[in-house]
Amino acid sequence: MNLNIRELSSESADFRSELEGLLAWDSVSDDAVQKAVTEIVEQVRVKGDEAVIDYTNRFDRRQVSAATELVISRDELAKAKERVSPELVASLEAAAKRVFDYHERQKQPSWQYQEEDGTVLGQKVTPLDRVGVYVPGGKAAYPSSVLMNVMPAKVAGVEDIVMVVPTPDGFVNDIVLAAAYIAGVDRVFTIGGAQAVAALAYGTETIPKVDKIVGPGNIYVATAKKMVFGVVGIDMIAGPSEILVVCDGKTNPDWIAMDLFSQAEHDEDAQSILISPDAAFIKEVKASMERLVETQSRKDIIKVSLEERGAFVHVKDMDEAMDIANIVAAEHLELSMDEPEKWAEKIRHAGAIFMGRHTPEALGDYCAGPNHVLPTSGTARFSSPLGVYDFQKRSSIIYCSPEGASSLAKIASPLARGESLEAHAMSAEYRLLKED
Amino acid sequence: MNLNIRELSSESADFRSELEGLLAWDSVSDDAVQKAVTEIVEQVRVKGDEAVIDYTNRFDRRQVSAATELVISRDELAKAKERVSPELVASLEAAAKRVFDYHERQKQPSWQYQEEDGTVLGQKVTPLDRVGVYVPGGKAAYPSSVLMNVMPAKVAGVEDIVMVVPTPDGFVNDIVLAAAYIAGVDRVFTIGGAQAVAALAYGTETIPKVDKIVGPGNIYVATAKKMVFGVVGIDMIAGPSEILVVCDGKTNPDWIAMDLFSQAEHDEDAQSILISPDAAFIKEVKASMERLVETQSRKDIIKVSLEERGAFVHVKDMDEAMDIANIVAAEHLELSMDEPEKWAEKIRHAGAIFMGRHTPEALGDYCAGPNHVLPTSGTARFSSPLGVYDFQKRSSIIYCSPEGASSLAKIASPLARGESLEAHAMSAEYRLLKED
Repeated sequence: MNLNIRELSSESADFRSELEGLLAWDSVSDDAVQKAVTEIVEQVRVKGDEAVIDYTNRFDRRQVSAATELVISRDELAKAKERVSPELVASLEAAAKRVFDYHERQKQPSWQYQEEDGTVLGQKVTPLDRVGVYVPGGKAAYPSSVLMNVMPAKVAGVEDIVMVVPTPDGFVNDIVLAAAYIAGVDRVFTIGGAQAVAALAYGTETIPKVDKIVGPGNIYVATAKKMVFGVVGIDMIAGPSEILVVCDGKTNPDWIAMDLFSQAEHDEDAQSILISPDAAFIKEVKASMERLVETQSRKDIIKVSLEERGAFVHVKDMDEAMDIANIVAAEHLELSMDEPEKWAEKIRHAGAIFMGRHTPEALGDYCAGPNHVLPTSGTARFSSPLGVYDFQKRSSIIYCSPEGASSLAKIASPLARGESLEAHAMSAEYRLLKED
Repeated sequence: MNLNIRELSSESADFRSELEGLLAWDSVSDDAVQKAVTEIVEQVRVKGDEAVIDYTNRFDRRQVSAATELVISRDELAKAKERVSPELVASLEAAAKRVFDYHERQKQPSWQYQEEDGTVLGQKVTPLDRVGVYVPGGKAAYPSSVLMNVMPAKVAGVEDIVMVVPTPDGFVNDIVLAAAYIAGVDRVFTIGGAQAVAALAYGTETIPKVDKIVGPGNIYVATAKKMVFGVVGIDMIAGPSEILVVCDGKTNPDWIAMDLFSQAEHDEDAQSILISPDAAFIKEVKASMERLVETQSRKDIIKVSLEERGAFVHVKDMDEAMDIANIVAAEHLELSMDEPEKWAEKIRHAGAIFMGRHTPEALGDYCAGPNHVLPTSGTARFSSPLGVYDFQKRSSIIYCSPEGASSLAKIASPLARGESLEAHAMSAEYRLLKED
């Protein structure tokens, strides 16, 4: 199959603007969606279960009459797991264990220290009380996403993890429920869309109010999450997934072709870019792709995404490749080259760095250990993978000794008066010790 | 001055709903603001400096003709510092040092570990490249806020820290500029409002595009920050400030009165609440407040905020007080009591915990060390004080050995096929070792 993929060269005068054009992504902002979601969120907030049941019956074509029918208990999750093949259960369990072990290293302890005058300062770290995980339903159901969203919360020590997953036409995905069981989800509700987000944010008679909502969803879910942000915490709103492969030209071109496909097969908006200083290698990879794409069950999606958003970028050397990688700030960055640890030192911005020829993104997507929820569309410049830190929060600790308070009051008082905040100054001055 | 402050009792049948009513806060969402900000952001994005100059002249009543007139260099910041009283400079420097020392403890290192088969996993921590700090101008100018927003970025290792501060009618606040100099700000632009936020988010010919915008502002600034979120990172959008004082009845009532005033004097929407199991003590504090309020330069603001949003809450014992404190999840929680360290263990949700009778909030506002940018309106349930972690981001590291890749591929492949993602499966399978 002929693939018409964009080719850029860093030697072109327009390279920088071509690169920006390639990377540009505007998330859809639709008034109709906004209006529909506003209405749904308001109805669920006011009417609770009644509205949730109503929307669920309407959008998911179900015949629910009582909210209790929306609940899947842990016992039922265990039964779903029994219905999944032992091979798949073993893989889910192995992946869950590796993800757990990696995330354990992210757990942050509370700390405090005492100053010479007896004043104690510190930071108390506590888990969130209750978290809601949104899992998309229907055909594109991703059990790996259940593991990746739930495990960091579990490691953080969140005591109550609630999951929502829509079951359109009543279709329940056993692998997703098995993953929920293995990850340690406490309860599942078979609801989805903006109504599920609103129910988790405000609580209903049956669905408990959570402190934070995480997990991917369609534009209605994303819009609802943005809308309830502040009432509850949310994770980032993801754009389309992307991979940037940098290769020195010495990896098997079929491997690189397939690594690029593994991103392109997600959806038509996904982005796969290869950077190499080796023009002949780029041609080889292209030939591999044109040959291999025929074998792919999702070849139609792959073709569209590669032709719409993919690119080959020819650069003069590896240093320039690293500079461009820092501009792209890719969600997934694959350094398929000799001495990747040396080159990785030059990388400042990336969601995840896959190093060496034996580390395709797919291993990280499922089971290497690090999270697969990563910052997209260049947001790796300022944000991080989903992690334990997203399910812990900090409280500052200040415990002044009388002596400490007195000396701090002498610093605070002029500053407060400099800001014309007299009550602040007096509140501090009351703690001045007489003998000072 | 008679103060008509709400009194609640936990024994009342309606207590829980009264408490919820007391805490309820809806941030203003105004279509006119939204429309104005949309227009400003779009104009600045398209026209750059020209639009920034135009809005600055219009809104801040200035006569700027070239964007270079908007820049204050570090040399000029140094000169502003010379114009500030030595006492105030000494306080700013002492506060900056304490804030720096505390935040140093928040700095997170990169880490990695090697598995038995040679695979390396880790997390690379890097500072943001460039940060923009928004500082409100005009009368309510807070140099302490400059320190609190800039120091964590400095500790994180951010190399370029840009500050914006509007100078309405050309009025420049030397204390604010001195604080910027001391904190280590690289450049200041005398712009404000939505136009400043847009300039930092998209960059103009003169104002550099940043990776994250932090700092407080009015409703136009907050709306603009929300609008550019995703293009750049932002800090949280703060609601009105609040303090919850829990006292066992043994602290000097004048002290508690002044601690409550120090919050109430901020603005009419600020909230000050006292909880105590000692009804007689609540009466004493009220008497102190009615006597002391007369002495306050901001007594009009204090009176409105106490009468509109303040409260005394009588509880049956300290255990119940802690339960209520966890419901409130206050921005500032003062535990003015014996053995505060024992009671603090029961606190799960608070922005900052001020322990003991000698730790008024005012000391934390200026110089104790922890940040004074704290989660408001109950968002301490899921968010944290501004910190070094807000200016660092993480990249996952995965470097598989050939053996490691091969064994991970065996886990990933069935999971990928279970999700109908065949290219993922094949990309992993290419890394299976022949001998396996």
